[in-house]
Amino acid sequence: MRIIYGINPLTEALKSHPEYFKDILIAHGRTGHEVEKIIKLAGQHSIKYRIVQKGDIESLAGTLHHQGVAAILSELKYADVEDILERWRLSEEKAIILILDCIQDPQNLGSLIRTANAAAVHGVIIPKDRATEVTPTVVKASAGAIEHILISRVTNIADTITKLKNTGIWVIGIEADGKEDIYSFDMDTDLAIVIGSEGKGIRRLVKEKCDVCLSIPMKGNISSLNASVAGGVALFEVLRRRRKR
Amino acid sequence: MRIIYGINPLTEALKSHPEYFKDILIAHGRTGHEVEKIIKLAGQHSIKYRIVQKGDIESLAGTLHHQGVAAILSELKYADVEDILERWRLSEEKAIILILDCIQDPQNLGSLIRTANAAAVHGVIIPKDRATEVTPTVVKASAGAIEHILISRVTNIADTITKLKNTGIWVIGIEADGKEDIYSFDMDTDLAIVIGSEGKGIRRLVKEKCDVCLSIPMKGNISSLNASVAGGVALFEVLRRRRKR
Repeated sequence: MRIIYGINPLTEALKSHPEYFKDILIAHGRTGHEVEKIIKLAGQHSIKYRIVQKGDIESLAGTLHHQGVAAILSELKYADVEDILERWRLSEEKAIILILDCIQDPQNLGSLIRTANAAAVHGVIIPKDRATEVTPTVVKASAGAIEHILISRVTNIADTITKLKNTGIWVIGIEADGKEDIYSFDMDTDLAIVIGSEGKGIRRLVKEKCDVCLSIPMKGNISSLNASVAGGVALFEVLRRRRKR
Repeated sequence: MRIIYGINPLTEALKSHPEYFKDILIAHGRTGHEVEKIIKLAGQHSIKYRIVQKGDIESLAGTLHHQGVAAILSELKYADVEDILERWRLSEEKAIILILDCIQDPQNLGSLIRTANAAAVHGVIIPKDRATEVTPTVVKASAGAIEHILISRVTNIADTITKLKNTGIWVIGIEADGKEDIYSFDMDTDLAIVIGSEGKGIRRLVKEKCDVCLSIPMKGNISSLNASVAGGVALFEVLRRRRKR
């Protein structure tokens, strides 16, 4: 069972995966065209909704920022790494895969998933341990992107990197102390981008598996970017370079 | 009075503005070289510290994520727009200023300040109303960047834009429906970048004052980026282009 809340997450989930829905809850007195759209979409897929007290939605969502709507969904179906590779092959494009090495903050994970979708990555790979999983906060912060993207949860990131490399994908770690910078590196190849955890960066054993570590050149007093900003700058640089081709 | 907490924020603040410190609190039993560094820095500037119960730091910080250290500082000194213009002139570089039109989420504001510092902006301009101000959460999310950057809080963003334009600065709004995109626009000029609020974007009256609105080209199902990621992509694109020159 999985809880989502907020107007955008519900609307996006109803559009792409109505089959996940078990229940929709709308706060008493909550009206407006956004809620009407949710009710209409629910109706199209014969999903029932209930009007409940605002407090009930608050308890379910575990936050005040639910915008008066919540839903109970069946478990998120994590993808296999094979599914991501399959999506890449079917796309007939250069691979772009995002690997997150132990993101701790659900806001960051949600934001990275949102950015990954905007950059049309073929999939996101996260570890099973020592990292946040897909919680309601992650779903909300992803602004609905979670319903469109393949997310694979793996036991061992280092082994997964080896697997990707064996298919011909270049694996790039983004690190403050990278040897080259992201602007001088040739990105005209199949790529996976690795972003490390907040504070600690990419773990040593994972870093050693990367083909290369690249830095984002910076100028100020602070030596690193927030993980979700670093991911955004790196992914959009790949997008820009491929767009130019 | 202003509260900061966390290892990085305290360390950065001690390095750049020891004169702000009124009191340092360290949780009973909290040891390690990071804390020792804080105590050493405090000693160098004759700032006293107290060992207190963890619960006291929790109450002061208003969060569990304080890493066992907190400090009470005198009020943050907001800068004037004139100070930002002065820093730009003294730098003898092309201007780069970040204008935030009503950011609501303290995490986003902190992250944007951190990114702005990493991109060496000359200053950040935020509005007095309808936006989050610099709270302890903002300071923490800025990872210490707040102590190095000029932040100006203005009554009217639209008027401030007019002022910047009168000094020859081009003001660019970043918007999903921008006419041109950030990659095709000539950035070899003095610039201010405007990022709008989460969800609502740049307000109409502010947008009308911008010289031009530019989009970040995207490919996925989601039509916009998180405000702090959009700010990161835009600022680092300016940096990349100027680096190339």
